[in-house]
Formats: sequence, structure tokens, C-alpha cells
Amino acid sequence: MSKEKLKHIVLDHGTGGKLSGELIGAITERLGEVHVGKLEDSAILPIGAGRIAVTTDSFVIDPIFFGNGNIGHVAVCGTVNDLAVSGATPKYLTLAFVLETGFPVEDLERILDAIREAAKEAGVLIVAGDTKVVRKGEVDKIFINTAGVGEFAPDARSYSVSQIRPGDHVIVTGELGNHSIHILSIREGLGFETKIKSDCAPLNKLIADLNGSFSEHIHTIRDITRGGLGTVLNEIAAAVGRGISVEEQKLPILHETAMAANMLGVNPLYLANEGNLILFVAPEHSAAIVERIRQNPYGRSAAVVGVVDETTDTRVHLTSKNGETKTIDLLYGAELPRLC
Amino acid sequence: MSKEKLKHIVLDHGTGGKLSGELIGAITERLGEVHVGKLEDSAILPIGAGRIAVTTDSFVIDPIFFGNGNIGHVAVCGTVNDLAVSGATPKYLTLAFVLETGFPVEDLERILDAIREAAKEAGVLIVAGDTKVVRKGEVDKIFINTAGVGEFAPDARSYSVSQIRPGDHVIVTGELGNHSIHILSIREGLGFETKIKSDCAPLNKLIADLNGSFSEHIHTIRDITRGGLGTVLNEIAAAVGRGISVEEQKLPILHETAMAANMLGVNPLYLANEGNLILFVAPEHSAAIVERIRQNPYGRSAAVVGVVDETTDTRVHLTSKNGETKTIDLLYGAELPRLC
Repeated sequence: MSKEKLKHIVLDHGTGGKLSGELIGAITERLGEVHVGKLEDSAILPIGAGRIAVTTDSFVIDPIFFGNGNIGHVAVCGTVNDLAVSGATPKYLTLAFVLETGFPVEDLERILDAIREAAKEAGVLIVAGDTKVVRKGEVDKIFINTAGVGEFAPDARSYSVSQIRPGDHVIVTGELGNHSIHILSIREGLGFETKIKSDCAPLNKLIADLNGSFSEHIHTIRDITRGGLGTVLNEIAAAVGRGISVEEQKLPILHETAMAANMLGVNPLYLANEGNLILFVAPEHSAAIVERIRQNPYGRSAAVVGVVDETTDTRVHLTSKNGETKTIDLLYGAELPRLC
Repeated sequence: MSKEKLKHIVLDHGTGGKLSGELIGAITERLGEVHVGKLEDSAILPIGAGRIAVTTDSFVIDPIFFGNGNIGHVAVCGTVNDLAVSGATPKYLTLAFVLETGFPVEDLERILDAIREAAKEAGVLIVAGDTKVVRKGEVDKIFINTAGVGEFAPDARSYSVSQIRPGDHVIVTGELGNHSIHILSIREGLGFETKIKSDCAPLNKLIADLNGSFSEHIHTIRDITRGGLGTVLNEIAAAVGRGISVEEQKLPILHETAMAANMLGVNPLYLANEGNLILFVAPEHSAAIVERIRQNPYGRSAAVVGVVDETTDTRVHLTSKNGETKTIDLLYGAELPRLC
């Protein structure tokens, strides 16, 4: 599972960094020929005469209630976004709870209310569910798993990393790191959470707006969640076999988030988001695409932040405000578990 | 959530009995119009020009390794069976792990091997996955969630409780309670586990054999899992609005299982199975259907065990070997958590 093969699961296996990647690689290798799919946000699969997108996610967020949302809201948005970035229209979600004995029914009701509202906003239906109850101490309060099915119109394009080309512009749709800083601030009692809110949102309508006019110029869309922008850029650079260059001053980062991250000793580039996309688009159309994204309330901070290089060294370069360039590495792990 | 509304989740909310039903009812009510589906094993949904079946299940079994299987085997079979009973062909599974820090990688590999073998036997593909890692004590070792998508051929029938008619024969395909007794015996150190094995198996091929010649005579198929035969019969009686009568001497129960259950003070009628179906079929075809099921290795114990009554009192009656009749109630809960 790496050169110095680990014998036990460690927290860094779950944080979206290098070690997470190694674990996922080891799992898919062990599953052998029964595993298909390109390890993108959704798998695109034939069904009948058409195609569907399928995805799954478990939500183990701590705390389960935060300033402007809760685990239910995150669960619906995360799965809707994973479907939408493939180019599919999110249609059906499944919902599975593992509940700890003693969990307040009132809290479950608040979570269900958030699920209902998020599903309504996204226009998806909850079609199947499961509830398991375990003894006190066998799960931390509540974990939610959602899986989702999306539908492709017969002539719809699907987005995939394989379509990225050198020269493509890199667009980020929202401010980086707000979800993580919001959660961390509550967890550590720092008080930032009143100014920095989670960005958690269903982005399928933002993507649907683009699918019409711009889909042939959009090569890839990805959801920037666990591991943050730094991780997704490294994964894509490796998958495409090209370097990616990003300009620090173009990155949408809220001033308060930068301050809070600095104080906490974390880098916003590696922080999880729950309503933030990265797009790789044909450069001649990037300005028009950014303009269209900014018309959506969840895309008001959209900006072109970088470009796909000609180089085949697959490193991610960040040019800082003072003109210095440094490499944005894939972290081994990260010490911020349970943010999503 | 019941007349004496509970304020906290209790273990009985998860055991498949009356309280589980109340919790699920409260959840779907709270989800409102974003919830669709008939609360059967799978939801049957339109997609493109066709139909799919969608289902989900979390597996929290304890112990995770047992005599003839493990949590991975149970996770694949449970989801495959839930899809197949709808009449769909199981196609795609998602796989989500929540892992406790310190979980042995070797154990994960054994579980993945079981998943691979079960998926291969069932002919399904793992198409998407997720791994989360939480701190020691935040989850008990490993929980697995699987969701599944099945496909209907354009002319395929779907099975649903709404098709059941008075006079229908009730068929059970396997010996009752073996999975639970096997797990309980290991948990309690009773030594029965060498003689009584889990029945965990993918039953999609058994069902596919019937779909061809017999589908128009089969009204409903259900997977008898959590809550056992007693629970599923009560749920179906309530849904159909008819009583159901079952003959005790026709129930396939292994002698050793009956003995062990007696010793443990549990009733095999309420014990979970992982490879056992109940079918409601047109009476004039039940003998031929049983004969066909018995040709499958997982259906060798199949038998007609009862009949759907004309009465509308929706009770389940068991006629014992000595001719006495008693009511098989829906239990409030059951003190056997984490069997599946």
C-alpha cells in the first residue's frame, strides 16, 4: 500500500492526500475486474439504451450541526455535486443512516429538514433508505451515506479528465476553504464562524446553465472537496500527464479566511469545500464561461486562476503575488479529519 | 413517532420490528414530497426511456468475520438480493467504507476479497466508492454501505406487494434463522457455528431463472433479512390488507437451528437471514415454482409454507404441528442488534 507498507489504517488514509490515494489504489487493485470506473466524482455507465452517472459518499462530519447547515445539508449537496460535475442531471438519491443509541430524535428531525430543503432546491428525489442503530460508543452520533443516480440526455456531453488539453484555462467558482475554516472555528471555539460560513450548496443548476451553451468548450468539472484545491490539481495533473500553473493573486480567498487559516497554521489550498468547483475549459471561451458562472449566486467569486502547461512533469506550480514560483505538492495526509 | 413518542433513538429502532417501522415512517413523513418509493426492498424508477431499480443498505455486522463469510460478503449479497427481488437485473454497486483508525489493512484485504468474489458470482460491477477514516472509538472497526442499481429489460415484469391476491401461496426458499444463529453462536461462544452456517448468498441467478417462465405467476418476491419471516409477513399482511396463514410444520428450519434458538430463547421466525426469499405466487403454479427453485443450490429447502387469506384483519396466523393456531405478531423490537 506504499513502499513502507502500512499495516493499519491511519487517520491520514482518510484526508484526501497522498496516503488516501494509495489506499484507494490498493482497494481498486484488490477488487480486480469487478471494479470499473475512472475514480472521478461519478462513474458514467451504460443502462438500457442510455447512460447514467452513479456516485456514493459517506458523511462523518464533526460537529454535525454548524452555523449555516448540518450533516444532512452536506450529504445531499455533496452527492448532487458529484453527479452534476459529470454532466449528468442528478435525479435520485439513496439515504442511509447509522445512528448511535441515545441520539436525540429532535436532532434527527433537524437533519431530515435540511435534507428535504437541499433535495428540493436541487430537484432530486430520495428514493431508498436504510437505518441502522448501534450501541452507545459504536458510532459517533450519526453517519450518513448517500448514493446518487444521474441521467444523461441522449445527446448530452459527459465531462472527464481525459478531455483536458494543454493551454486549457482553470476556473474556480467559489472562495476556497470557507467550509473548513467555519467547521474548525466551531470545533476550536475561535469565533470566526459568524463571519466565515460554510459554502455548502447544490451546484447542479449552476452546471446545468453551462451545459447548454458552453458544454463543448468545457473539458472537465470537478468538485473541490476533501483535500482542497491543492489535492484536486495534483490528481488532475497526474491523470492528464501535464503540469498546471496557478496564480496566487487570482485565487478567490476571503480575507478573513486567509487570516484564520494563517492563525490556525493551515493552508487554504488544502482545505475542504462543499460548494466549489474547478473547471478546465478551452481558453478562448474562459472569460464568457466565468461571466456566466458569476450570474449564479453560488458562482459569484468565479475566476480564471491558472492554465494547463505543455510540460509533462505533472507538477502544480503556484506563482505568488511577488512573482516567485513554488511547487504545490500532494500532501502525504492532513491533520483535519471529519470536515465532510 | 408513536403514541408515547420517544425522544431518543433506542436499539429497538434498528431491529426491524414495530419500532423500526415507526422510525422509517417518521423519516419518510419528515422528508415530505422529496421522498418517493413504496418502502419495498428497491425503488423502481423511470430513467431515459426505461426503468431502473435502486436500493441502499448499511452493514454494521458484529463480528465482521464469521465462520463462512464476512461483512464484505454480506454487503454485496444484501444489495444484490434487494435489487433482484424487484425483478431487475443487478448491474452496478457502490461501496463506501467508514474505517476506524488502527483497523488492520490485512482485514480490509480479506473483506475486499470477499466483495470481489461475491460481485463476481452475482455478475455485478463495483462502479464508485468512498473511504472515510475516523478516530479510534468513533466507529466500531468498519461499517460498509452499498447502494445498487438494477436494470429492467423493456418487457420485464416488476414485482411489488400490490400484486398479491387472496389465495396466493407463500413460498420460502431457504432454512430460517441460520445466519443469525451462526453469528450469535460466535458472539456468545456457543460452538454451534461449525454446524450452522450463515446462508449469505447472492440470489439474483435463482430469481433470474424464475423470471423467464414463471414471472407472470409470481406476484411479489422479498428478501427475508432483518426482523425475519415474522416481520416480513406482518409488513406484507398490513400492506395488502389481508391475513396470512402459515403452517409451522412446513417451515424449513434446520434441526440444529431450532435447538440452538430454543437454548438461546429466541424464535427462528424473527431471526435475520442473508440468503432467503419469500415469494407470493399464483396457487396453481406454486408446485412448479418450488420445483424450479429447488434446482438452484441456494433454493434446495424451498417449500410452500402458507397462503394469503380472504380475511381483511391483516393478522399472521401460525398453525402449529398439533393443530393449534396462534398469531405471529410484529415485535416491538428485538434484542439482537448488528446481525446484518
